[in-house]
Amino acid sequence: MMPTKVSIFEVGARDGLQNEKAVTTADKLLLIDKLGAAGLTRIEAGSFVSPKWVPQMADSAEIFKRLNKRSGVVYSALTPNLKGLELALDAGADEVAIFGAASQSFSQRNINCSIEESIERFIPVMERASASNVRVRGYVSCVLGCPYEGDIAVSEVARVAEILYKMGCYEISLGDTIGVGTAKNARNMVEAVANKVPVDKLALHFHDTYGQALANILACLETGVSVIDSSVAGLGGCPYAKGASGNLATEDLVYMLHGLGIDTGIELQQLIDAGNSISRAIGRASGSKVALATTA
Amino acid sequence: MMPTKVSIFEVGARDGLQNEKAVTTADKLLLIDKLGAAGLTRIEAGSFVSPKWVPQMADSAEIFKRLNKRSGVVYSALTPNLKGLELALDAGADEVAIFGAASQSFSQRNINCSIEESIERFIPVMERASASNVRVRGYVSCVLGCPYEGDIAVSEVARVAEILYKMGCYEISLGDTIGVGTAKNARNMVEAVANKVPVDKLALHFHDTYGQALANILACLETGVSVIDSSVAGLGGCPYAKGASGNLATEDLVYMLHGLGIDTGIELQQLIDAGNSISRAIGRASGSKVALATTA
Repeated sequence: MMPTKVSIFEVGARDGLQNEKAVTTADKLLLIDKLGAAGLTRIEAGSFVSPKWVPQMADSAEIFKRLNKRSGVVYSALTPNLKGLELALDAGADEVAIFGAASQSFSQRNINCSIEESIERFIPVMERASASNVRVRGYVSCVLGCPYEGDIAVSEVARVAEILYKMGCYEISLGDTIGVGTAKNARNMVEAVANKVPVDKLALHFHDTYGQALANILACLETGVSVIDSSVAGLGGCPYAKGASGNLATEDLVYMLHGLGIDTGIELQQLIDAGNSISRAIGRASGSKVALATTA
Repeated sequence: MMPTKVSIFEVGARDGLQNEKAVTTADKLLLIDKLGAAGLTRIEAGSFVSPKWVPQMADSAEIFKRLNKRSGVVYSALTPNLKGLELALDAGADEVAIFGAASQSFSQRNINCSIEESIERFIPVMERASASNVRVRGYVSCVLGCPYEGDIAVSEVARVAEILYKMGCYEISLGDTIGVGTAKNARNMVEAVANKVPVDKLALHFHDTYGQALANILACLETGVSVIDSSVAGLGGCPYAKGASGNLATEDLVYMLHGLGIDTGIELQQLIDAGNSISRAIGRASGSKVALATTA
């Protein structure tokens, strides 16, 4: 049974821009404001990680302090550890997110520790966030495949998702980090996770690296999942370049959902304008086919 | 109920290349041969239209005369009229196709006559093809929208499809010419047509202009349709340019179908190699995300 409403979690300003060449703080603020104006109510606006590792996010504190907070919009930050969380809280982030993996090899290569060690590190983050009444979102990466291990067992995805949920994450975002999933295994994975975590606490974060993201989402909507992560203009993965992370373009997702009669609360044309504006600022073509098709 | 096998009708060498800058006859012949080697058994290889209108197809007779005919592969030609049909038969095409529309305005602008007049013109083509024991495929364009009229009634699509089928077309290919369809209306349209034409005589020809083609196909596979048109490397619509026709890349389709456990008979890596080879010949990036993701 398809949901009648879908909540879109917009990751372009963080997961997107951290994989693009640096843009100015002013351009980021403009993007975030345009996204809110277009009707997005959940906007990931920055990341509190070492600027040595992700220089594109070095201005996240400034972003949170300066952004024009719109009523009804939640601005979130990625906070991998306690120090990042303190900085995010100080800057005024509305909510935060932690980042786990369903693959041991990916966890080791990406955050230099095992899945279990990463969960240990999340405990003080969860406690400190709880003390501040700040909600924590949990990402699980590699849910449909790992660049080092290949296939990942759905039982392992469900196990990690359940741990994060039981630790107190209010929502678990299931990431097909390398975009290799297809419709049937995507749906099977979501159904397996939904046996451990209520389906209304799950989100889909599917990359479009292999062009499959929309088809996979369509297949998964039947499970009742109704939160989807995407990135305006497909920020974070230039579809024309090798090594693209391949974020799904929010415009193309909204076009599909509206065609299905699903409410998103988003004004598509304003969203397209927001995506075209940041694409010009970066100096590349939009990664949204809807934007390319509708823009003269 | 999803089909267990899907037959892919490869249109890259015709519908694709007619919308790209001209390539040499040798490059076309190489492409067609590589497609056959990759396991495609239905290859549209040329078009017998006036070279004044479509200069890219001026060498179609030479293509058919010189191509390396593989056993079990059907090489087809687009033949809009009796003269084109005679040329195609003379050149040795295995089967031919005619091109109708579900939109009066598109018919007028594209082939300078009404839908009814176009059908009149097809009668002598059908008769001559029948006399030569050559099968005729029928295309219907604008099945999910028209650039001039907007929405097209599914009853009109079903009416035109039924006329072509009753005239003797062995298969009706339903074209979302401008790629505006979404999953629900695509499926509704196919179901409406399947009330008039047996579903095993239908094919989907969905453009990816709005990024929706795979999701739309996924939705329509449930109706039992099991023939899909696509274009290797997304030939015929550079996804980065305004005005792209946006053919769906065969590689991305095959990746999805194989992920669904659906047999296509195609060797994906050889298909990717064929697409990369013609993309280099044209001097542009592949329009297949699978090809971009898997090619160093």
